[in-house]
Amino acid sequence: MKRFQEISQQFSTHFDRSHFPDQPETLYGAASYMLEDGGKRIRPVLCLMGNELFVPIIPDTWKIASALELFHNFTLIHDDIMDKAPLRRGKDTVHVKYNESTALLAGDILLLRTYEYLNEAKLNHVQHLIRILNKTGKEICEGQQMDMDFEKLTSISLDQYMNMIELKTAVFLAASLQMGAIMAGAGETDQENIYAFGKNLGLAFQVQDDFLDSFGNPEKFGKQKGGDILANKKTFLLVHALEKAGPAEKQIMENLIVSSAADKIEKMIKLFRESGADQAAMAAKHIYMDKAFTHLDLIQVPAENKMALRELADFLLERDS
Amino acid sequence: MKRFQEISQQFSTHFDRSHFPDQPETLYGAASYMLEDGGKRIRPVLCLMGNELFVPIIPDTWKIASALELFHNFTLIHDDIMDKAPLRRGKDTVHVKYNESTALLAGDILLLRTYEYLNEAKLNHVQHLIRILNKTGKEICEGQQMDMDFEKLTSISLDQYMNMIELKTAVFLAASLQMGAIMAGAGETDQENIYAFGKNLGLAFQVQDDFLDSFGNPEKFGKQKGGDILANKKTFLLVHALEKAGPAEKQIMENLIVSSAADKIEKMIKLFRESGADQAAMAAKHIYMDKAFTHLDLIQVPAENKMALRELADFLLERDS
Repeated sequence: MKRFQEISQQFSTHFDRSHFPDQPETLYGAASYMLEDGGKRIRPVLCLMGNELFVPIIPDTWKIASALELFHNFTLIHDDIMDKAPLRRGKDTVHVKYNESTALLAGDILLLRTYEYLNEAKLNHVQHLIRILNKTGKEICEGQQMDMDFEKLTSISLDQYMNMIELKTAVFLAASLQMGAIMAGAGETDQENIYAFGKNLGLAFQVQDDFLDSFGNPEKFGKQKGGDILANKKTFLLVHALEKAGPAEKQIMENLIVSSAADKIEKMIKLFRESGADQAAMAAKHIYMDKAFTHLDLIQVPAENKMALRELADFLLERDS
Repeated sequence: MKRFQEISQQFSTHFDRSHFPDQPETLYGAASYMLEDGGKRIRPVLCLMGNELFVPIIPDTWKIASALELFHNFTLIHDDIMDKAPLRRGKDTVHVKYNESTALLAGDILLLRTYEYLNEAKLNHVQHLIRILNKTGKEICEGQQMDMDFEKLTSISLDQYMNMIELKTAVFLAASLQMGAIMAGAGETDQENIYAFGKNLGLAFQVQDDFLDSFGNPEKFGKQKGGDILANKKTFLLVHALEKAGPAEKQIMENLIVSSAADKIEKMIKLFRESGADQAAMAAKHIYMDKAFTHLDLIQVPAENKMALRELADFLLERDS
């Protein structure tokens, strides 16, 4: 994690400045407000680590990393509008602090600015970088739409759920790493492997996140136990349990989902355990994790170059290795 | 106008096909719905005419024209959400037909698709085209934000109004022409002149549109007389009249703006006439129009190449020449 933290700090020094003109103040104030206190900045740091895997960080990569952070915030502003979310990182969301119209425009501005930074890369990389961002952007929108569509369905298949997660979150981590590799001039096969590493890491992390909501140590996990259950969120556990349930058990679960009983969380966790959803989640996490590390192993650079990404993955996946 | 109509028809043949995958149907259905029966398609046709000004149309330009039409529809979907507009081209707006979240995402998808088409241009043009789209996109967002900010103010200056109009509508017409010229390999000065032609044409057209709302022949104009007055819209006429009014007249106008008297339109038109706003609008239109034609004259191509753009401008500006 040390190298992650070092690059994260360096990135903040680089990124924490104005990315916009002053006027109109409402519009650019809203966009800048979104970027303040900006979380872990995992995507730009992945981009920089994907670069450093192959070469000492190439200066232009900081700009590509900035583009990715702007892009991430574009998706967050628009998602928050759609989800009617009141808070983000403990602060009012942009549409609450300003209004929905300004938040919508501020998101658009962040997306346009993303392309401005990408477009400043060297000519031999521009088309490739923009092609990947276009593809990833489309996939993220598709994942968000699937998420909204799924909310209206009582049950979806595990395949549908994993496909949605892949599009909504995993591909962006993968693309961030790949864009760093492109900036390093990495070959096609290495690019494919780092992309696959990032995608499977993202999937493993998301399945683990779903698991920890019900079976984690709340103090260590940092979130309220059963938060997903209370919010009736579709998770790996719920989707798996519903898929495996017979008609009678399915009816019990569906009744529990719409109930607001005081022991809803306990009961649901019990059902998850009985259906084997907890074990299935751990098994799935390990499959994705193994795939991720296999692809990392295949990248044609000395093992010591991979240490930083390996440490980061171990930390994210709570692997003691 | 003949050449405009010919190119417009050819563009429709080229453009009226699917621009998206099938799934998720909600998302891509909404984006495709927006593109059906797509209005006059003036921006892509301007791009193609800007190309044909210099050379026989270069095949790749059709793709750039498509990008501009997608971009225009991105701005319309998001604007309609912000304005809570129920209808567009006589049909339900996207957020009414689907819902706000899907409309927001469909707009994002149209913007991402815009960059995909631009990115398919030849390498020597890509960066320039994307740079212009980024700049124009930012300006349009700024114009839209200014428009929303101005709604909350009782009076703004004529300079502020014209600046808003320039950003919100004129620069996109200018950029469409310039992008066609870039695809033709036009020199920098010619690019500047065609951009200035488009910008001033757009300003003249907008001022004329404001004028016709109060002083046009409704049958010919095709809109209800005084529609802007009823909607309390800031127009060249209102902004000019308020700017020129003394304190007493200003009070009368402000009272009239908030009233819903049956003779509101008549009274306001009378005040416009008394303040000389009608004549000022006509004078302003002619200044922008003259500027536009001066820049068209300066472009270094044979006069016959300019005929099509000249005819289009004459038609739009109701100039009998």
